Amino acid sequence: MADNKKMVEEITPMDVDFAKWYTDIVRKADLADYSSVRGCMIVRPYGTAIWENIQRLLDGMFKEKGHENVMMPLFIPESLLQKEKDHVEGFAPEVAWVTHGGEELLSERLCVRPTSETLFCEHFKKVIGSYRDLPLLYNQWCSVVRWEKTTRPFLRTAEFWWQEGHTMHETAEEAMRETEQQLEVYARLCEEFLAIPVIKGRKTDKEKFAGAERTYTIEAMMHDGKALQSGTSHYFGDGFARAFEITFQGRDNKPQYPHQTSWGLSTRIIGAIIMTHGDDNGLVLPPAVAPVQAVIVPVAQHKEGVLEKARELRETVSKVCRAKIDESDNSPGWKFAEYEMKGVPLRIEYGPKDIEKGQCVVVTRHNREKRFIPVEELPARIPELLEEVRRGIYDLAAERMKEKTWTAATMDEVKRLAAGPTGFIKTMWCGEEACEDKMKDEAGLSSRCMPFEQETLSDVCPVCGKPAKTMVIWGKAY
Amino acid sequence: MADNKKMVEEITPMDVDFAKWYTDIVRKADLADYSSVRGCMIVRPYGTAIWENIQRLLDGMFKEKGHENVMMPLFIPESLLQKEKDHVEGFAPEVAWVTHGGEELLSERLCVRPTSETLFCEHFKKVIGSYRDLPLLYNQWCSVVRWEKTTRPFLRTAEFWWQEGHTMHETAEEAMRETEQQLEVYARLCEEFLAIPVIKGRKTDKEKFAGAERTYTIEAMMHDGKALQSGTSHYFGDGFARAFEITFQGRDNKPQYPHQTSWGLSTRIIGAIIMTHGDDNGLVLPPAVAPVQAVIVPVAQHKEGVLEKARELRETVSKVCRAKIDESDNSPGWKFAEYEMKGVPLRIEYGPKDIEKGQCVVVTRHNREKRFIPVEELPARIPELLEEVRRGIYDLAAERMKEKTWTAATMDEVKRLAAGPTGFIKTMWCGEEACEDKMKDEAGLSSRCMPFEQETLSDVCPVCGKPAKTMVIWGKAY
Repeated sequence: MADNKKMVEEITPMDVDFAKWYTDIVRKADLADYSSVRGCMIVRPYGTAIWENIQRLLDGMFKEKGHENVMMPLFIPESLLQKEKDHVEGFAPEVAWVTHGGEELLSERLCVRPTSETLFCEHFKKVIGSYRDLPLLYNQWCSVVRWEKTTRPFLRTAEFWWQEGHTMHETAEEAMRETEQQLEVYARLCEEFLAIPVIKGRKTDKEKFAGAERTYTIEAMMHDGKALQSGTSHYFGDGFARAFEITFQGRDNKPQYPHQTSWGLSTRIIGAIIMTHGDDNGLVLPPAVAPVQAVIVPVAQHKEGVLEKARELRETVSKVCRAKIDESDNSPGWKFAEYEMKGVPLRIEYGPKDIEKGQCVVVTRHNREKRFIPVEELPARIPELLEEVRRGIYDLAAERMKEKTWTAATMDEVKRLAAGPTGFIKTMWCGEEACEDKMKDEAGLSSRCMPFEQETLSDVCPVCGKPAKTMVIWGKAY
Repeated sequence: MADNKKMVEEITPMDVDFAKWYTDIVRKADLADYSSVRGCMIVRPYGTAIWENIQRLLDGMFKEKGHENVMMPLFIPESLLQKEKDHVEGFAPEVAWVTHGGEELLSERLCVRPTSETLFCEHFKKVIGSYRDLPLLYNQWCSVVRWEKTTRPFLRTAEFWWQEGHTMHETAEEAMRETEQQLEVYARLCEEFLAIPVIKGRKTDKEKFAGAERTYTIEAMMHDGKALQSGTSHYFGDGFARAFEITFQGRDNKPQYPHQTSWGLSTRIIGAIIMTHGDDNGLVLPPAVAPVQAVIVPVAQHKEGVLEKARELRETVSKVCRAKIDESDNSPGWKFAEYEMKGVPLRIEYGPKDIEKGQCVVVTRHNREKRFIPVEELPARIPELLEEVRRGIYDLAAERMKEKTWTAATMDEVKRLAAGPTGFIKTMWCGEEACEDKMKDEAGLSSRCMPFEQETLSDVCPVCGKPAKTMVIWGKAY
């Protein structure tokens, strides 16, 4: 294979250089590539197939709860972006501005959407008349642009792909329920399908979305102990509705402001998959989103009858999962390494001896466990094995999160822990932004969230000593 | 229903004002809305659901033929757009330019992609090394921007959604086969699924895509006799490959230029659906892409047991098609008009008398034919009826195209026909652009295509009298 460009090379071990390990996987598993456009990535077929699987799962869950997809414009006129004060302050510094259409200088600059609250509000104003029009439950799949200074594939890019849900409700209570419900949808995606344990909680005011009253988040822990915000759900109250003068005729026949939410999950989640499950041999994919769930590698395929039998096996396996056979003339060893790099959950080895015995060898990617399985049992065993992989990689991640989560009652303890291995540090907090700033300045920690599952660790804030209001999880974040 | 905003109003009859009829349907069937961004539309849930169904069908056909999806950047640096001379000349005058990222003036302007050949070529250069890497069969679903002066929803908007396929091949022959194959895929989508008859052919050099060697097209005829180009497939030869210096190591170990294609179909096709099948009562949707294929309208729903039985019916009907029940307190008459406006293929009326007789009334949208069908036969009859609708609306459109297609042998005949009702005019042609220009200047006709199915109408070009090379279909176009 002298001219086979893609040799399976070693990747940098994660203990040597975690950042390099990450980009090695992105490149060698053919997930994404750089483009000549500053900060913009190309998502290659394998990465796109993972995203399509995530889309299908999420889209199904959205529609099950009554949401409908729409397609909104890519551009936002400057005056529209400026309608909600906090929102424009948050986003204006990082948007891309279109100034010319063809040769013509535009009378008003347009920004490429960094998020679409303003566009949705403009539309809501037109289509909402009465309480009978509510709730409006919209979502869109698109890419958005934020002019980031430093970028890394999937984790932070100038352009990224996501879905953004935007809903309008008759009452504040209903909007709050929607905000919580959609966070649950994200948590379910992560835990049940991506095998990523997450902590659900609320962001502090300092960390919340520009223009939101409340932001809920799910936070995951990566291999290196750093946090990755994996999905957010915002409650806006009627702030945007007032700014955009959106009213509806209430049941009492009086005009009222509707209550709003938005929520988003992006291609960042692919970064979370890599850094939660990957290892020094490459990617480890959760079965639910793996483009190939089982790869069949014929052994001694030049021998008579092997390929024919392997193809028959592929037919069988295809009935219960997304299966592929690699008939290329690369060696079995090369193929083993290649599909480990690509994180395929199950490898099925099948050679003359196996054929003779009516069995095959199934290796689970995450722990390299080998099993000899009679061919006739495969259709029943494969779904079980895929579930075993999901549970196995979930448990590994959950265990790591448990091991790397510590509790601190005093600022000294916080600093001592922050100087050690990276992880989550739980403390109480008084609720003051000054104390949050001090955590950043003195211990290098940002607040990840105020978890829904609260504990009482002490009575006071470790920073200022004043009475504590809530427990916060602190960490270093992507 | 005093506060029900959306009363079913009359729409402008198509014979009175076809353009107004069109925009009435777009608005009243809730397909799209205008936005404050010049020339950009909002595709509303109903329109988006139609597009999603089209996407699913096409995406399946692409993948069946080995294509993989990718996600490319939204921006193209000016220098990259300029690499292929004909291409930049075609597109530069109509692109939107990004000049600032946040507060910072960019060192190089970026255009918002009008199409992505240049981005794909840059990537192909990186990933193509040997003939073993070919063919590369890529596609992406995205929106693109072309700064159009006058716009109409779906037909011509500054931003539109589409898919763009981009492939690279070892030989010219293989690339040509791909170009033809993908045109066939589009033709199949239109004829089999959208019930739109199309003429397949090749564009003249004047009408071909900027940078292409050959452009193939499918042309449909709208209600008003005008043509709508519904999908195009381009063969590039190695023009872009040479401009981008993309080479691969051939089977002979020598560097060679690969041969390229691209092909696209856009949200314009929704305009084609409206103008091919719609009537004065609203939209008529082809069953394959109708978000709701059968709507159940309970009659006298306040009477005991009616709603319960209607819901049971919905369960039954849901097993064989996309079904919906309208339980709102609007009158049956209002509902009939509403779902006719929305083009739902089948309406199922179900009231106390029907329940008693164990039957229901099924009305096909396109011809308003009523049938009494025993409930137990519904699961078998609905798929048949949907197919009957598809065939029925296809035949109507095919008949119209036949009626409005004329043949001319002399320029006098051409002018006489062009002065009458709009339609397709077939003539021979010498192949000279000067004669094509004259057809435009003197008869107001543009060449739609040189159809694959050629006829010999005469020996000479009706414009110049020189020997004819090919038959052309001329018309007025959207």
